[in-house]
Amino acid sequence: MPGVRVHAIDLLPRLLPWLPQEMADVVQKELSDHAVEMNFGVQLQRLEPRNGRLNVILDRGEIAVDLVLVAIGIVPNSELAAAAGLGLGPKNAIAVDKTMKTSDPNIYAAGDCADAFHIVTGKRVWIPLALRANRAGWAAADNITGSKSIVDGVAGTAVFKVMGLEVARTGLSLQEAVDAGFQPVDVVIKSRSRAHAHPGNQTIYVNLVADKPTGKLLGGSMVGREGAAHRINALAVALHGGMTVEQFFQCDFAYAPPFSPVWDPLLTAANQLAKSL
Amino acid sequence: MPGVRVHAIDLLPRLLPWLPQEMADVVQKELSDHAVEMNFGVQLQRLEPRNGRLNVILDRGEIAVDLVLVAIGIVPNSELAAAAGLGLGPKNAIAVDKTMKTSDPNIYAAGDCADAFHIVTGKRVWIPLALRANRAGWAAADNITGSKSIVDGVAGTAVFKVMGLEVARTGLSLQEAVDAGFQPVDVVIKSRSRAHAHPGNQTIYVNLVADKPTGKLLGGSMVGREGAAHRINALAVALHGGMTVEQFFQCDFAYAPPFSPVWDPLLTAANQLAKSL
Repeated sequence: MPGVRVHAIDLLPRLLPWLPQEMADVVQKELSDHAVEMNFGVQLQRLEPRNGRLNVILDRGEIAVDLVLVAIGIVPNSELAAAAGLGLGPKNAIAVDKTMKTSDPNIYAAGDCADAFHIVTGKRVWIPLALRANRAGWAAADNITGSKSIVDGVAGTAVFKVMGLEVARTGLSLQEAVDAGFQPVDVVIKSRSRAHAHPGNQTIYVNLVADKPTGKLLGGSMVGREGAAHRINALAVALHGGMTVEQFFQCDFAYAPPFSPVWDPLLTAANQLAKSL
Repeated sequence: MPGVRVHAIDLLPRLLPWLPQEMADVVQKELSDHAVEMNFGVQLQRLEPRNGRLNVILDRGEIAVDLVLVAIGIVPNSELAAAAGLGLGPKNAIAVDKTMKTSDPNIYAAGDCADAFHIVTGKRVWIPLALRANRAGWAAADNITGSKSIVDGVAGTAVFKVMGLEVARTGLSLQEAVDAGFQPVDVVIKSRSRAHAHPGNQTIYVNLVADKPTGKLLGGSMVGREGAAHRINALAVALHGGMTVEQFFQCDFAYAPPFSPVWDPLLTAANQLAKSL
């Protein structure tokens, strides 16, 4: 909101840890430019009313504010399932197979309460996002009513807006790839959202992650004022298709000056990443 | 240009014959709304100066105008290659293999003068677009200088702007699929560029074409005021990956209200098309 100064308090050491530092810095600057002051690695102790305002008591210092907005994340609503003895997956989400069936063959679960298989790792994950919840609901209904429906899994594709920036991701970050047992390499490139000579073109950042032994794409992320939100889906499709960096680089992307450089930023990133493989 | 009335003369029976009629009508309306009057199935006979203006003589009638812009398409510049005895492909483009080598092993060709393999049909095509020309140039240089470089081929992915509309395509249209020997089915859906409740959301049309016996995606097109140009690349990647409609439908697309409905228009189209398969 114009004219509102914001203090953000975060336990994490930095903004969006899954984004490469260079790209997180771009998002950080966008927040600073809009009077959002980030405080990282800081723990909230309590809130106290004082002189008609609210005092935010931290482990280091305190801040007097007019309004507190609490965003502490979510957990799967699986208490009932746990009490019923159903198997639980990551973060205690209800464990379901690819038909949304729980450990009890007569009980199905769908939505943010249930887990999914990650299409890159093949392992169970809990990534509560709307498309998956929708898709799982359809599949559960189909399977309960007798028509067979299988859902492959999620890539964790997501996008959000930070002031004027689009921030998008799909698949695994570099660290997530390491944690999943891959031997990842990654690249961060800076390109343009439209042809260089086209008015209104903006900087766009692309991070791509691949597995060195196999050359397979593992994930990526994008940050830019335009053109990140929809571009990320091309990478998501490549992950579902199990493509290598080289196969992705071969893809025939659309070009016209108002929409892209001749080499789409995703292709430029793939070309750079291929050199590390 | 504001205030300029335009008469367009076209030999073809209708606008963009590769677009489904319903989508071509949207583009047609955008032109009409900007004072562009289309004349289809009309042949230009000659231009004559008259009273300080230009008279455009057609096979049916004539139009007096101030300026004539001639856009009659392009042909590959392959005269030298033909004279040298090199093999020619579709539209007399210089025939090259996947390393850009012509029928003479000591001669390479790249750019709009040369042909390519279509990744859906596997057949030679001449689709002169910038990305392919760039890519082919790189590959030719690599192969001539001793580092091996193979280019899979083109999907014919393209995008252009018609006033305020984005028009995009990739792969085969329904008729092109018939001509290539497939047994295609297609669907046209109308969705929104952003979440329905999000301000600024626009109508977006998607056409998807698939092969009935195999379920494989063959191509598609999109028309909309926003969100068509970059979305088409997700479909292009699916074509390169040889995906079926069902596999494409399973892909995990990004959702956030400023950028897409929960079900991206491409997924909605895939879901509808799957019902015809």
